[in-house]
Amino acid sequence: MDRLIVVKIGGNLIDDSTALQHFLKKFAAIQGQKLLIHGGGKLATELAGQLNLPQQMIDGRRVTDAATLKVVTMVYAGFINKTIVAALQSFGTNAVGLTGADGNCIRAHKRVGSADFGFAGDVDEVNAAFLQQLLHAGCAPVLAPITHDKRGQLLNTNADTIAQELAAALSHAFDVDLVYCFEKEGVLLQADDDTSVIPLLQPPRYKELKQTGAIFAGMIPKLDNAFNAISRGVRSVIIGSGAKLEQLLDGTSGTRIINE
Amino acid sequence: MDRLIVVKIGGNLIDDSTALQHFLKKFAAIQGQKLLIHGGGKLATELAGQLNLPQQMIDGRRVTDAATLKVVTMVYAGFINKTIVAALQSFGTNAVGLTGADGNCIRAHKRVGSADFGFAGDVDEVNAAFLQQLLHAGCAPVLAPITHDKRGQLLNTNADTIAQELAAALSHAFDVDLVYCFEKEGVLLQADDDTSVIPLLQPPRYKELKQTGAIFAGMIPKLDNAFNAISRGVRSVIIGSGAKLEQLLDGTSGTRIINE
Repeated sequence: MDRLIVVKIGGNLIDDSTALQHFLKKFAAIQGQKLLIHGGGKLATELAGQLNLPQQMIDGRRVTDAATLKVVTMVYAGFINKTIVAALQSFGTNAVGLTGADGNCIRAHKRVGSADFGFAGDVDEVNAAFLQQLLHAGCAPVLAPITHDKRGQLLNTNADTIAQELAAALSHAFDVDLVYCFEKEGVLLQADDDTSVIPLLQPPRYKELKQTGAIFAGMIPKLDNAFNAISRGVRSVIIGSGAKLEQLLDGTSGTRIINE
Repeated sequence: MDRLIVVKIGGNLIDDSTALQHFLKKFAAIQGQKLLIHGGGKLATELAGQLNLPQQMIDGRRVTDAATLKVVTMVYAGFINKTIVAALQSFGTNAVGLTGADGNCIRAHKRVGSADFGFAGDVDEVNAAFLQQLLHAGCAPVLAPITHDKRGQLLNTNADTIAQELAAALSHAFDVDLVYCFEKEGVLLQADDDTSVIPLLQPPRYKELKQTGAIFAGMIPKLDNAFNAISRGVRSVIIGSGAKLEQLLDGTSGTRIINE
């Protein structure tokens, strides 16, 4: 099977245009098939503030009311997505910006539960065939964290989740390496020591580190997500700094998560 | 050759969500290959106002400074484009929303001339191959009026022009019928009489009507644009009301423009 590199970037890169350009140049230089997922960053919050929209949060998660959905659709699917696509085009990568509605590539449903998160979407199904067509045509899909329910409703969906779902769905057709870029160098053994990166993490060690409380609590959802991707057929998950994309891919930086 | 229907809609439909839903249901019902181009509408002007951005106009055309480009990218490529795509998906059409940067489908250059229109783009080249791939895969491309220069700059481009350029470029591979939807029933012989629609217009008659001043001046750029499309291989251009899409396509409404 061909290799496919799936990279997710978050707000820390998106909010720093110099770092973003540097990252995109490195992403464009990746040979072979690749796909990018981007998160949101501060711009949506800023725009909501300028428009005097109150931002409601539950357990640290944004509540997406109708006005907020409009703002995140404009910012994520409009400004951020197209800025990234235009930059990648200038670096010679034939990028195609998408939301989950485009080509019906990610169908989701409005989250229901004890708390009302508004127009937040949980993923139901990835249309891998559509993404494969684009990849085989030499395009690099660039996904914004907006999905739809196939009944006309756009939904706000977590970018880490989208990355995991796309990587898992595309594992049937590709050897997928999933790269999560964040603000740290990798998974740290001591949360305040940037040199304590764990280079390789497999299920038994992760279980042990979790039990002894050695892993920073804030990393646990990200790592559970990574091990979930592995269990669904993703070949490896690499977690590290977006400033070091080449090194993450050649194994000289970050934390590599594999099954065995 | 297969038939391809290219439809352009403007602000009058986009600003009226009931009329837009009605139109999109009819568009989704078109059998065979189809492509939609949408304009802007009032939302970008409203958002610029809410953000206190001064809107500069030269000869009735908006000047796209950097802040305005950000607003139109958010509104056109984000909110309007994805709202249309999600609605078409709900009606069973596999829509894919695009700007000219996506798949490098429309390359443009920043307009230079006596007046400075800012980040306004004039089209250089259409990547017909990319659009053909999507069409052959059963997708309906939905184009926002944003292009790029392939050097990282997004540009604001007139939607009528994009429609003409796409229709002409795709005429090498399809029998293209180009439909311009606007607020009137068609090209009128008397500007104030909606029943005076000219059903069929060919070059000699157009020349004659122009010379005698019988055509409303505001229609002349649209008609020159239409005849230009015809001269570049488009089979027919149909001008009429977006509320009557079926009738425009079956020839019972609007003005049909053909070469002979």
